[in-house]
Amino acid sequence: MSINTFGHLFRVTTWGESHGPALGATVDGCPPGVPLRAEMLQHWLDRRKPGQSRYTTQRREADEVEILSGVFEGATTGTPIQLMIRNTDQRSKDYGDIAEKFRPGHADFTYWQKYGVRDPRGGGRSSARETAARVAAGGVAREAIRALLPGAGISGYMVQMGPHGIDRDRFDAEEIERNPFWVPDAVASGEWAAYLDGLRKAGSSVGAVVEIVARGVPAGLGAPVYGKLDTDLAAAMMSINAVKGVEIGEGMTAAALTGEANADEISMGEHGPEFSSNHAGGILGGISTGQDVVVRFAVKPTSSILTPRRTITRGGETVEIVTKGRHDPCVGIRAVPVGEAMMACVILDHLLLDRGQTGGQRGAIG
Amino acid sequence: MSINTFGHLFRVTTWGESHGPALGATVDGCPPGVPLRAEMLQHWLDRRKPGQSRYTTQRREADEVEILSGVFEGATTGTPIQLMIRNTDQRSKDYGDIAEKFRPGHADFTYWQKYGVRDPRGGGRSSARETAARVAAGGVAREAIRALLPGAGISGYMVQMGPHGIDRDRFDAEEIERNPFWVPDAVASGEWAAYLDGLRKAGSSVGAVVEIVARGVPAGLGAPVYGKLDTDLAAAMMSINAVKGVEIGEGMTAAALTGEANADEISMGEHGPEFSSNHAGGILGGISTGQDVVVRFAVKPTSSILTPRRTITRGGETVEIVTKGRHDPCVGIRAVPVGEAMMACVILDHLLLDRGQTGGQRGAIG
Amino acid sequence: MSINTFGHLFRVTTWGESHGPALGATVDGCPPGVPLRAEMLQHWLDRRKPGQSRYTTQRREADEVEILSGVFEGATTGTPIQLMIRNTDQRSKDYGDIAEKFRPGHADFTYWQKYGVRDPRGGGRSSARETAARVAAGGVAREAIRALLPGAGISGYMVQMGPHGIDRDRFDAEEIERNPFWVPDAVASGEWAAYLDGLRKAGSSVGAVVEIVARGVPAGLGAPVYGKLDTDLAAAMMSINAVKGVEIGEGMTAAALTGEANADEISMGEHGPEFSSNHAGGILGGISTGQDVVVRFAVKPTSSILTPRRTITRGGETVEIVTKGRHDPCVGIRAVPVGEAMMACVILDHLLLDRGQTGGQRGAIG
Amino acid sequence: MSINTFGHLFRVTTWGESHGPALGATVDGCPPGVPLRAEMLQHWLDRRKPGQSRYTTQRREADEVEILSGVFEGATTGTPIQLMIRNTDQRSKDYGDIAEKFRPGHADFTYWQKYGVRDPRGGGRSSARETAARVAAGGVAREAIRALLPGAGISGYMVQMGPHGIDRDRFDAEEIERNPFWVPDAVASGEWAAYLDGLRKAGSSVGAVVEIVARGVPAGLGAPVYGKLDTDLAAAMMSINAVKGVEIGEGMTAAALTGEANADEISMGEHGPEFSSNHAGGILGGISTGQDVVVRFAVKPTSSILTPRRTITRGGETVEIVTKGRHDPCVGIRAVPVGEAMMACVILDHLLLDRGQTGGQRGAIG
Repeated sequence: MSINTFGHLFRVTTWGESHGPALGATVDGCPPGVPLRAEMLQHWLDRRKPGQSRYTTQRREADEVEILSGVFEGATTGTPIQLMIRNTDQRSKDYGDIAEKFRPGHADFTYWQKYGVRDPRGGGRSSARETAARVAAGGVAREAIRALLPGAGISGYMVQMGPHGIDRDRFDAEEIERNPFWVPDAVASGEWAAYLDGLRKAGSSVGAVVEIVARGVPAGLGAPVYGKLDTDLAAAMMSINAVKGVEIGEGMTAAALTGEANADEISMGEHGPEFSSNHAGGILGGISTGQDVVVRFAVKPTSSILTPRRTITRGGETVEIVTKGRHDPCVGIRAVPVGEAMMACVILDHLLLDRGQTGGQRGAIG
Repeated sequence: MSINTFGHLFRVTTWGESHGPALGATVDGCPPGVPLRAEMLQHWLDRRKPGQSRYTTQRREADEVEILSGVFEGATTGTPIQLMIRNTDQRSKDYGDIAEKFRPGHADFTYWQKYGVRDPRGGGRSSARETAARVAAGGVAREAIRALLPGAGISGYMVQMGPHGIDRDRFDAEEIERNPFWVPDAVASGEWAAYLDGLRKAGSSVGAVVEIVARGVPAGLGAPVYGKLDTDLAAAMMSINAVKGVEIGEGMTAAALTGEANADEISMGEHGPEFSSNHAGGILGGISTGQDVVVRFAVKPTSSILTPRRTITRGGETVEIVTKGRHDPCVGIRAVPVGEAMMACVILDHLLLDRGQTGGQRGAIG
Repeated sequence: MSINTFGHLFRVTTWGESHGPALGATVDGCPPGVPLRAEMLQHWLDRRKPGQSRYTTQRREADEVEILSGVFEGATTGTPIQLMIRNTDQRSKDYGDIAEKFRPGHADFTYWQKYGVRDPRGGGRSSARETAARVAAGGVAREAIRALLPGAGISGYMVQMGPHGIDRDRFDAEEIERNPFWVPDAVASGEWAAYLDGLRKAGSSVGAVVEIVARGVPAGLGAPVYGKLDTDLAAAMMSINAVKGVEIGEGMTAAALTGEANADEISMGEHGPEFSSNHAGGILGGISTGQDVVVRFAVKPTSSILTPRRTITRGGETVEIVTKGRHDPCVGIRAVPVGEAMMACVILDHLLLDRGQTGGQRGAIG
Repeated sequence: MSINTFGHLFRVTTWGESHGPALGATVDGCPPGVPLRAEMLQHWLDRRKPGQSRYTTQRREADEVEILSGVFEGATTGTPIQLMIRNTDQRSKDYGDIAEKFRPGHADFTYWQKYGVRDPRGGGRSSARETAARVAAGGVAREAIRALLPGAGISGYMVQMGPHGIDRDRFDAEEIERNPFWVPDAVASGEWAAYLDGLRKAGSSVGAVVEIVARGVPAGLGAPVYGKLDTDLAAAMMSINAVKGVEIGEGMTAAALTGEANADEISMGEHGPEFSSNHAGGILGGISTGQDVVVRFAVKPTSSILTPRRTITRGGETVEIVTKGRHDPCVGIRAVPVGEAMMACVILDHLLLDRGQTGGQRGAIG
């Protein structure tokens, strides 16, 4: 990952601040001939859009994406695709108080330290609004995957909110679209709603764990050492605002397992190799196995809370701060479509990389 | 991260297989004038070297590093530094059985799928031996950090082995060098020895969690979006063999916290800003805060175990496999110096990047 | 150079087609705190703008640049700067005839071959309009250079048009801004005007040589092997539309010289080393000497001419083609500000790179 | 191009100094399954090897290449290929005098300025010996091209030495291997021998122009803007020591042509599109046309001559210098195999890049 760019062959550079005129993504390296219209991207942006339920920030943004380049007569041309989203509801007066004070747990302090200049309106570049650009770029990646890899699919959902996890025995993929949390467990959905209402009224916030699964990914994507598929997925997910941990397959839990318990045994099935389990999360030695690719990431609670916290000012005084802006009690909710977008971008990138180096051929079995 | 390269300005490309004539690292972008001799690197390689206790593989490798370029009269010249380590104990007969069978949980299957060709001797490029090259490169990074950032220090240790974690109340940094596990808890060290002896005799294996801390890192390293310090750390750690999860600060636990519990409050101390806690692991918005940078990663148990497992052959038959080579019951032990090396490389790289963009100046406070 | 990006630390990605809604540049890695307003960039865009004299295309474009991100209260923030220029005069009907036919000497044929899809309106991505984005990005680089390197300056001019070269004995820097050719020779200016009028009336076109000089560049920028200052300058200039040759210092003429004739002797002057001549063009071994950095490039004649030429159609028929659009008889004229912009971007990039690796210190002499 | 690396997917990093223990190339991204043995690379190294005729330096180097990684049972594995060449004839006493003095026209001065440290023995990293590593890497690229693109071929030769050019009417490809100058003109060969003998005896030197042609390159390699095939070729050739100018097709001469004279007309032949000429050098809009790709570069005369030249010392004194080492009267001769190697690397890289983005499909004609 370069500074504001990620990807090797399918490269995404996002730009724009929360309160500037617009933000967007410059998408380079997309294969030519992929059907693409703004509505296809809008579908994914609408999922991430704030203000859709009482559980997300009440900032109202149309989040309408315009395609400014790289598409001709409804298909990509192979040249850079510029995706722009205008900011419409900026209300920067909300942020007046924090121009001088550094919010604890926020990037205010570190931006000021690094750059000696800071756009205090809405967190500037560290605003969650930056992720809208990722979702738009991810929409492009999805369409290219659809063209190159029919049958593949990417799906994200929450598996934990604060202390409350889902029950995997109740896992129901169809439930995901039915509740405001994208949680695949109808019972959890109800419990979480009550829990989050309480937090919201208290002006508090809480963290979450999101899981993203890519199905239909062929064996052979990735590389053995630094360009590993899991390396790039870890970087992609960790680059999302507020993410503090990333797991592939068993993740941190793998530490507690024995070799026997962690082994995914292989046998020859009718349509090729079959695995007894997927502890590896679909990746071995940095390369995809053909199983589902499974990534999880933890989102910390937003630091914008109503309880007064101690902090300092630019002038060096110790003071108290209360953040009164419109914020999300659980930013993890809106991270679901963002994680999906990052998965789509990484999978497409590795599909192109693999095709470049190997021509997409596979070692024969049987 | 490129395919076999990591870093932006301080770039490391490793090369070499477990059973070829040699392996090494091409280190580019090191500042000139850094004192460097092979002994300085050898110090770190000796820590990673196998066969030092009964808890690591009995393969005997001298792991002697030669500096082939980039150093003149005991100091770096600013040109590429080639570090070569010859393989001496290759005993490839140990691996005869696995030329045809894919070991479950190992990269055998995915390499074959991707490349249609595979060096079965010792895992080829996915061997843990590749990490010797990282440790050598990390040694270069440490010397450059010593020159540029006096007072900084990097330290790694185990915090969990299988189901057994350390007790943070017994944390004793001096204990780290006294036991074969680099565990900062004397009680745990004794318990782990007994536990691992049992596993070793049973031909089993277990996972681990390693924590790496960088002290004395100034505020302002990193970038807001994709070139975040935590993004690069996540990629660096996830790129180590067998790593399945990476955490910054609270990591996955952040999901369970409220905004109040997770806040690191700031106050003005005598020597500058002070933090009440370090849930953030020293990084906010992708940029270092000046606190300790804290990363943890989980290493899965090695899949080379004596219990027979089901797998398939290249010919497509379902068979059983037992791996009889010399292997580590807990590869997490030897991952400690590797994690330190990766931390050193990432910190140096971001130090150079920051100096490039901002000149190393900091926004004034007070 | 990546596919649509150039630069290492100061990175520019341009996007947009001739006849889409807009084009622009995503500028990443700019130092923070650099004063920047749209007017500063507009100044340079106005120089490149078509339709300013009868010697350039009559397409009328306002070429107004908007800064969409990365600037707060009149200074750069260190985050990506998005520069957008709307297309206003698109008149795509002019291009109807060439949707089916490939213009000889134009990118029509190769685009079609590569992508199997092509935006025929105005050459799509290969239009000279793409260079407006470079000029805008170069304007950002100029302001950063002004902040970091007071006293440095970049100046471009034509030294040859078709068969007519300038007389170096008449070189007059002040003449450059006085004529439509940016030629530093008043006599040549008059002769060229007559010559080009003839070509324009005949519907013909001609090539040119442009020279770009950077003054006040300190010794020490560049690197010994692939990241050479001259390597990056060669790439930067060759990446401009229609450029077919690039020279540093003596350039191709160096082939005819002896070692004695080519030597730039050094002596110690009052203010440091002084050179007897500048055959090297300010670069030795890939690194700047402190002398003027001198680059020249040749621009081929545009292939859009009124004389019928033989070509083929997508359907595979051999036909004749005449290009009737509004075109430049000498595209080299408008390449002057583009070459300056590329020089500015490369110099700034190497200034940041050098500061990153060496801290900007210099080996002492005397 | 990164600092010591070139290429996007097929990436070459060279390392090593003239007088260190060894030098070499780390070659990453090679397709798997390419037949490769050291002898195949040795063939090309032997062509570049010094001391083969009285016209090149009398330094005697075996230039034996060892493959340390990335090859198993005679074929590439897809992992990094380390190529090492040991230095055997170092005789560093020859260079004693120049430790303190900066040779005019050499990198001595700029290295010292940049790094404040310098290996004076043989020019360190700026020695022509670095190009041996390129030739080895180019040998790998040639084998990969042979596997992917049967029928393609790369050939280099001299077209000018000092003031003496070849006569294109006498062009005879078979003559290239028959004379010590790789010149395709038997008459020129004889004249040049006499001319160079005179220069050699006088302790002088002279420049040259080398032309490299790639045949059998399919249409569609390259990209429209910065990742143009000609951009990468210009960078590749300009990165060779002592190169001061690079031309594609007509090159600098294109400036003097009219659009009519420069047009390569197209017609439909039996086997596809045919061109009436190749002024474009096989590249239009940054993308290959399917014609021969033609690049030329100018090599300056070496600055190591016997005539005393004025220079300064590190201490700041103005002095005279005579370089007495073993040097080439025309370094352009040995640049021929180097240019071929760079062409091979760039063509392979773009073949992989194109396959990555487009899958290698071509827009249909007819």
